[in-house]
Amino acid sequence: MAPRKIIIDTDPGQDDAVAILLALASPDEIDVVGITAVAGNVPLPLTQKNARIVCELAGKPDVKVFAGCDRPLGRDLVTAEHVHGKSGLDGPDLPDPTMPLQDQHAVDFIIETLRAHPPKTITLCPLGPLTNVAMAFEKAPDIVDRVQEIVLMGGAYFEVGNITPAAEFNIYVDPQAAHIVFSAGAPIVVMPLDVTHKALVTQPRNDAFRALGTPVGIAVAEMTDFFERFDKEKYGSSGAPLHDPCVTAYLLRPDLFQGRNVNVMIETRSELTLGMTVADWWGVTDRAPNALFIGDVDADGFFDLLTERLGRL
Amino acid sequence: MAPRKIIIDTDPGQDDAVAILLALASPDEIDVVGITAVAGNVPLPLTQKNARIVCELAGKPDVKVFAGCDRPLGRDLVTAEHVHGKSGLDGPDLPDPTMPLQDQHAVDFIIETLRAHPPKTITLCPLGPLTNVAMAFEKAPDIVDRVQEIVLMGGAYFEVGNITPAAEFNIYVDPQAAHIVFSAGAPIVVMPLDVTHKALVTQPRNDAFRALGTPVGIAVAEMTDFFERFDKEKYGSSGAPLHDPCVTAYLLRPDLFQGRNVNVMIETRSELTLGMTVADWWGVTDRAPNALFIGDVDADGFFDLLTERLGRL
Amino acid sequence: MAPRKIIIDTDPGQDDAVAILLALASPDEIDVVGITAVAGNVPLPLTQKNARIVCELAGKPDVKVFAGCDRPLGRDLVTAEHVHGKSGLDGPDLPDPTMPLQDQHAVDFIIETLRAHPPKTITLCPLGPLTNVAMAFEKAPDIVDRVQEIVLMGGAYFEVGNITPAAEFNIYVDPQAAHIVFSAGAPIVVMPLDVTHKALVTQPRNDAFRALGTPVGIAVAEMTDFFERFDKEKYGSSGAPLHDPCVTAYLLRPDLFQGRNVNVMIETRSELTLGMTVADWWGVTDRAPNALFIGDVDADGFFDLLTERLGRL
Amino acid sequence: MAPRKIIIDTDPGQDDAVAILLALASPDEIDVVGITAVAGNVPLPLTQKNARIVCELAGKPDVKVFAGCDRPLGRDLVTAEHVHGKSGLDGPDLPDPTMPLQDQHAVDFIIETLRAHPPKTITLCPLGPLTNVAMAFEKAPDIVDRVQEIVLMGGAYFEVGNITPAAEFNIYVDPQAAHIVFSAGAPIVVMPLDVTHKALVTQPRNDAFRALGTPVGIAVAEMTDFFERFDKEKYGSSGAPLHDPCVTAYLLRPDLFQGRNVNVMIETRSELTLGMTVADWWGVTDRAPNALFIGDVDADGFFDLLTERLGRL
Repeated sequence: MAPRKIIIDTDPGQDDAVAILLALASPDEIDVVGITAVAGNVPLPLTQKNARIVCELAGKPDVKVFAGCDRPLGRDLVTAEHVHGKSGLDGPDLPDPTMPLQDQHAVDFIIETLRAHPPKTITLCPLGPLTNVAMAFEKAPDIVDRVQEIVLMGGAYFEVGNITPAAEFNIYVDPQAAHIVFSAGAPIVVMPLDVTHKALVTQPRNDAFRALGTPVGIAVAEMTDFFERFDKEKYGSSGAPLHDPCVTAYLLRPDLFQGRNVNVMIETRSELTLGMTVADWWGVTDRAPNALFIGDVDADGFFDLLTERLGRL
Repeated sequence: MAPRKIIIDTDPGQDDAVAILLALASPDEIDVVGITAVAGNVPLPLTQKNARIVCELAGKPDVKVFAGCDRPLGRDLVTAEHVHGKSGLDGPDLPDPTMPLQDQHAVDFIIETLRAHPPKTITLCPLGPLTNVAMAFEKAPDIVDRVQEIVLMGGAYFEVGNITPAAEFNIYVDPQAAHIVFSAGAPIVVMPLDVTHKALVTQPRNDAFRALGTPVGIAVAEMTDFFERFDKEKYGSSGAPLHDPCVTAYLLRPDLFQGRNVNVMIETRSELTLGMTVADWWGVTDRAPNALFIGDVDADGFFDLLTERLGRL
Repeated sequence: MAPRKIIIDTDPGQDDAVAILLALASPDEIDVVGITAVAGNVPLPLTQKNARIVCELAGKPDVKVFAGCDRPLGRDLVTAEHVHGKSGLDGPDLPDPTMPLQDQHAVDFIIETLRAHPPKTITLCPLGPLTNVAMAFEKAPDIVDRVQEIVLMGGAYFEVGNITPAAEFNIYVDPQAAHIVFSAGAPIVVMPLDVTHKALVTQPRNDAFRALGTPVGIAVAEMTDFFERFDKEKYGSSGAPLHDPCVTAYLLRPDLFQGRNVNVMIETRSELTLGMTVADWWGVTDRAPNALFIGDVDADGFFDLLTERLGRL
Repeated sequence: MAPRKIIIDTDPGQDDAVAILLALASPDEIDVVGITAVAGNVPLPLTQKNARIVCELAGKPDVKVFAGCDRPLGRDLVTAEHVHGKSGLDGPDLPDPTMPLQDQHAVDFIIETLRAHPPKTITLCPLGPLTNVAMAFEKAPDIVDRVQEIVLMGGAYFEVGNITPAAEFNIYVDPQAAHIVFSAGAPIVVMPLDVTHKALVTQPRNDAFRALGTPVGIAVAEMTDFFERFDKEKYGSSGAPLHDPCVTAYLLRPDLFQGRNVNVMIETRSELTLGMTVADWWGVTDRAPNALFIGDVDADGFFDLLTERLGRL
């Protein structure tokens, strides 16, 4: 079977980096037709640069990287340097990229790619705020029906929130974009905090990355070392949740994940709960399901897969 | 030590009934100076009647029962007959009460009681929508500082909601009242779904009630039999959560419960998340704590206490 | 015909004072069965005191004055000393009152009065935030159908707002109370800024008050002198709008006023437009009319009436 | 002086048509570098077609017309066939256009034009919902500072609303887009209902169009004949407000208009007041001015200009 064609829309971010590395390490199953950067964890000039750093770390300087929107829809950008460090990739010492940034705007790349390929053959993998995807859907509504699937990291239900008591960071940064994407009608798989908080980089798992002995393995170990300071301190957890790689892992091994088809609506009206992903997990409303909301993962299986694949780079 | 004086504000409801029975069964520790009824699970004419039925079942026809508000603040009443049955106390076959309803309005009883007793000697125990308590605080703000503690059942954080995907029933019915109470400044202990969903009436626990062999034990078993149909079907749980008795149990044995002092705000602005109790469990905001938000209970200890006390009636 | 029985609910305020004086000057048509004070223009201790000052100025120390709520529903009190001065009655030098404040809470007085009189024989005349009236309706919903009419000053449509760009002061101070009152079902006549801004105290009209030569005439002239500083400066108008007396004048001479039966809803959800009275003047929705919204007044007729009646005191 | 370069962003609509005609009739002062169509009064396939019909009516088939967004941001499209008829240009019998629609997306045309011309030499003239302009600003924030001025028809303050009691149609259709545009920082001139309701096509003014005897004059008379049915019936006015031509007239003769530099915010949170343009006309907030909000027009001067210019086509 031909590898699945995906566009990774991302705001790296250490965990975005690992998600990208996992995809690039799996060419038999995944064909990364492009990476589109968006403002989120850090501003756009850093996220597009970081995306290229990661491609070069993976030894894949030919991947096309595009810059997209530098701010959310109708709202000031909120960033997360307190989690990811000033560069967004704090931890390892990685060289500046030499591969070029593509000229085309990320939004147009998404539109053209979906139009250029047969319907239902391109999967979108958003790892950050949904600004680029929402803009593409708004500018070219015809592409919505051409999307094979959207597999995204974002939101929370039982885990509720991390940037506010009610909202997860990616959705909170651009709730309007999330609302546009969740109401568009394309098939969606959501990796919320509910599942990513079950994919913790414990010390043995971090050791396993480092034990690969490769530049990639060591860099990933250093990135998760840095990244987990925040969560360990905040939540008292035994390691950092590896949010975004859940998206790539799902493409490779959906059997590792469990969830429910439910209705998910985005709170856009209230300051207090802005960006909440209101998932009707218990079916208490009559709203039609619009997303597969993942709630559980075989964490050992996930980390085994991740370590094995990173070892290939 | 003299028993702690409390006013139970309630909308029975089977679990309200058990909470009242537990209080009335514990005269050494708890002095129920009055029971105030509010519209909630069922309309006010039924909740005030049910409160009296429960007092008579407990053999305490001298308890003073007052009727309060028959609707929430600025909103139509939402009821929960789908959970509690048409009467609110479906399950056992209990006789109509013969003890009188007091003439005084519940709101005025709350105000007068707090003014008549020394400061910090009256505890309010709301088991339903917070309409009566909010009205008392609004009409007589001087009483807020006289309240010893408010120990209430309501809200949810990690368990999120039951009546909507974002809100627990008691708070959802009257979000404005909840907002008034949570921002008033009195010390608050909250028993949210987070803890009550850990206090499930499993079959052995139900059997233990019935095995008491007393009218009270049998009635409680029949009430929880009825009550748990809903939760078993909805959540696939092993029994019904016994929400309201957590309040009374906390008065008797606070050591059975664990929680955090956090800030809790009530969503009043958005239809989608109306009535959500936004608890800053992880301390991601700088909002000052205003409530002890309970998250865990020693369920076996709780049911042992409950069964033992019900056996005294 | 027997004089019409009214309760004036008020937060004096110079224009409230004139409204009260006009009522007390018209015993053949209006029977003031009580005055209830509420927090608004200034805090409650001042509004209840000012109400008594005005009664004594009118030579009517036997009028019963009650204190009500000292804060709006679920919201901090906003006051308007920038308009009314620190005392609320800045301008004339009036003695402290010697007549007593009644013990009963204003909310209970409203409830008992409506229950004690035949249905549809008591008119409520709110001149400030609607807190007291809303509390009475909430505590005793049976009284709503007993109200003859509510004639209130508050809101704005084409004149939009004065305390914010979208809201008039009385409604803005307690939007929840306004929502409760406007959705209760009692017949309502609204005197919004649309009409009160057409009842300006120009210099000749002020002179006419003063020319009465009586203590009342001189005090009213001094009050409007003070009051109009604000509006002249803010709006560049030729005099202060005499908001609240429109309510009393309507009771005496409804023929002086013109309006439309329209639907009025209160904005309670958005900070930006909080307290707006959304009046469907053009009938663009299918919402049922719930208020007679006054838009025009015969200003000369109004001031002639006012001056003539003030001359009787 | 070289003519002012403008992009007309429009959803024709009879009054849009007259605005376009007025611009095309004034080549010495106005250079229409392109017309971008947006969904609004009628769906996009009709608005882009109508824009071309109008160009051909004006004898200007070389004007470039672009299609833009077919729906607002995150919201279903609301249209106004009840005002404009099924085609959007009901009234005259005009032939289908033969001039082509440009391939480029309107959003990209706006971006490229602003980038291709020297800063501050392109004026945007939105006559419909602000979707296209907001999308351009969001996709390419660098263009905001290159805009000379935005002169738009939309909103209302003292005239409050037409599609709802609180909102004017153009802003109501896409409040998020309006929020983006009003908060972007470009200089804005607003033609709200406040001024357009003072530019009524009375019978003599309609007669003057017709008396031109030209195809354009007769078509405009027939369009306003159709258009005004609605307003005459709804508002009892003496003619239809000619909303959009105020924008073009302002470019030609700003001296005909009067307004204030004020802060304008867009209501995006509340269903009841959604799309309201909250203009701080009286300066009651400390929010900085962001728009020249027009409140008055020399209507005779406006219609003289309009008739004279239409006569040139």
